[in-house]
Amino acid sequence: MDTKQVKAFGTEASIEPLKGMKIERREVDVKDVEIEILYCGICHSDLHSVHNDWGGTLYPVVPGHEIVGRVKKVGEGVSKFKVGDLAGVGCIVDSCRECDHCHEGEEQFCDNGWTVVFNSPDKKHGGITYGGFSESIVVDENYVVHIPENLDLPSAAPILCAGITVYSPLKHWKTGPGKNVGIIGIGGLGHMAIKIAKAMGAKVTVFTTSQAKAEDAKRLGADEVVLSTDKEQMKNCPKQDMILDTVSASHDVNEYINLLKVDGSLVLVGLPNAPLEIGAFNVVNGRKSFSGSNIGGIAETQEVINFCAEHNIKADIEMISIDEVNTAFERLEKGDVKYRFVIDMSSLAQAN
Amino acid sequence: MDTKQVKAFGTEASIEPLKGMKIERREVDVKDVEIEILYCGICHSDLHSVHNDWGGTLYPVVPGHEIVGRVKKVGEGVSKFKVGDLAGVGCIVDSCRECDHCHEGEEQFCDNGWTVVFNSPDKKHGGITYGGFSESIVVDENYVVHIPENLDLPSAAPILCAGITVYSPLKHWKTGPGKNVGIIGIGGLGHMAIKIAKAMGAKVTVFTTSQAKAEDAKRLGADEVVLSTDKEQMKNCPKQDMILDTVSASHDVNEYINLLKVDGSLVLVGLPNAPLEIGAFNVVNGRKSFSGSNIGGIAETQEVINFCAEHNIKADIEMISIDEVNTAFERLEKGDVKYRFVIDMSSLAQAN
Repeated sequence: MDTKQVKAFGTEASIEPLKGMKIERREVDVKDVEIEILYCGICHSDLHSVHNDWGGTLYPVVPGHEIVGRVKKVGEGVSKFKVGDLAGVGCIVDSCRECDHCHEGEEQFCDNGWTVVFNSPDKKHGGITYGGFSESIVVDENYVVHIPENLDLPSAAPILCAGITVYSPLKHWKTGPGKNVGIIGIGGLGHMAIKIAKAMGAKVTVFTTSQAKAEDAKRLGADEVVLSTDKEQMKNCPKQDMILDTVSASHDVNEYINLLKVDGSLVLVGLPNAPLEIGAFNVVNGRKSFSGSNIGGIAETQEVINFCAEHNIKADIEMISIDEVNTAFERLEKGDVKYRFVIDMSSLAQAN
Repeated sequence: MDTKQVKAFGTEASIEPLKGMKIERREVDVKDVEIEILYCGICHSDLHSVHNDWGGTLYPVVPGHEIVGRVKKVGEGVSKFKVGDLAGVGCIVDSCRECDHCHEGEEQFCDNGWTVVFNSPDKKHGGITYGGFSESIVVDENYVVHIPENLDLPSAAPILCAGITVYSPLKHWKTGPGKNVGIIGIGGLGHMAIKIAKAMGAKVTVFTTSQAKAEDAKRLGADEVVLSTDKEQMKNCPKQDMILDTVSASHDVNEYINLLKVDGSLVLVGLPNAPLEIGAFNVVNGRKSFSGSNIGGIAETQEVINFCAEHNIKADIEMISIDEVNTAFERLEKGDVKYRFVIDMSSLAQAN
């Protein structure tokens, strides 16, 4: 397999800052598209991976899984993309393509394990995958989505992870007109969830511990905002059909389960490190559920991209250059971003 | 309201054994039926209530909520029962009848709170309700079910709580042919769940920590039995569509959540006192749910009675007389019963 060196930004160890490095990318295979990366979002899980918070990080690691760019080369068997097309890549860059879940377009459930865009053994080509903090990426066309020309490119990048991560459960749990949908937390995921749930037609209630964010939630489209630290507000909150929990820190989920209607679900998309404690009576009374959801398949990723284009939904972003990544990681750790950092990848050419 | 004294068995305080006592029962109102109680099952929640484990017990308490008997008097407006009919009463003896849930026949979700057969303020008639450890009970006909004559009466009593508690979630989560259904724990609820899930057509896998019970599980109808303390057996267990968790003691639910298929649910019907810990990744990967379920409505209680009659399903019971109740409570606390105590209530006439 022919490869070539490309510029990237990554780290050799969990304690080291990210820095410029060279990585090997394969030349396009029959079904591959090579994408010049224009923008890449920064997600909390990039930070977790770099810091090896969940274990299993393979160094050097080049993070980045909210990738938007332009196709600059296609393999001879590629039918869905041509040179010059806008293209997006999210978390999934390969899967077995043989199991029921892959056949159903739910590659996130692949029985044989899907290949993550970075820090994942590449079963087909060997080696470890490198993510979007790089000048280009080569991906099988079946794992690449189209980006409509009318989308603002930098603010479209976070749809590839934050967007699909909230869109998929909102759709699965039938968010729509007449439904009360709660969103816990206003960050990268939460702020997209507010916009998407609202566009789906639900009545959206946002739960936050921050008075400052409470005010911003309305601007983002929330119908109601509840300060979760205020017992009176929690008590008076109307019952919800579904509550999407975007919080990755430890928190008490029982008080939210108690705000669900009969048959309601609290759906976790955050990833707290410590287990969550759930009282038996809280789920038993009212046949309630504590559920989880993880990204979405490629077809659904295309769907949320199109949905955002149609409803003019953009992530609220703070654009940075690649040499600001380490500062951005520090700020992200403190929750100091409204609401997603996106790297202008043209800055990589000048970086060391 | 006219009342009369009837014999009962109950206790004045959590630390005292149950003993014979007199209680007041109302005379039949227009829509009431008076039932001579023939058999009453003993459920773990009787024990919890007597001991005030969950708080809120109002003394004196007369437990018992798996009641089978014969109608001996009916009010002038009663249309569903006549004197001499077999009749059953479970947990619910009244509800608001006005909310959506009551209209849908799911009185267990009544917005205004349903009236429990014992230890519950009776909103309509005043006072506190007394349960089935008594010679007779008076209940509105809308909260009484018919018992088919071909059911063995003593072994039918546990259907009124244990049976409906497992039937309702098995049906709600679509147990049937082609489905893998797991049952955790083989006790009063678990042994009924095995029989009912099997009769519904599912492939039933039982999880138990007890080798002795593992052998009995097959007799009860289990297709597979997994010793949950055996890591190898747990690892090799096929993935389940739904797992019904009947355990009321503290236990690790994560190892069972990990045995679910994509979109699978672990459904708790046991009531452990301590919260259960759930790891975020366990529900997030595979969009899994940890859910709960609590008894069922009156219509569904009639349905499970009829289902058991049709499929010749009986609870495995140990029949006792009323003066053995305190010993039975002690044995129940240790899990020493196969699988439900049922009191022959004719013994109450001779009791002190």
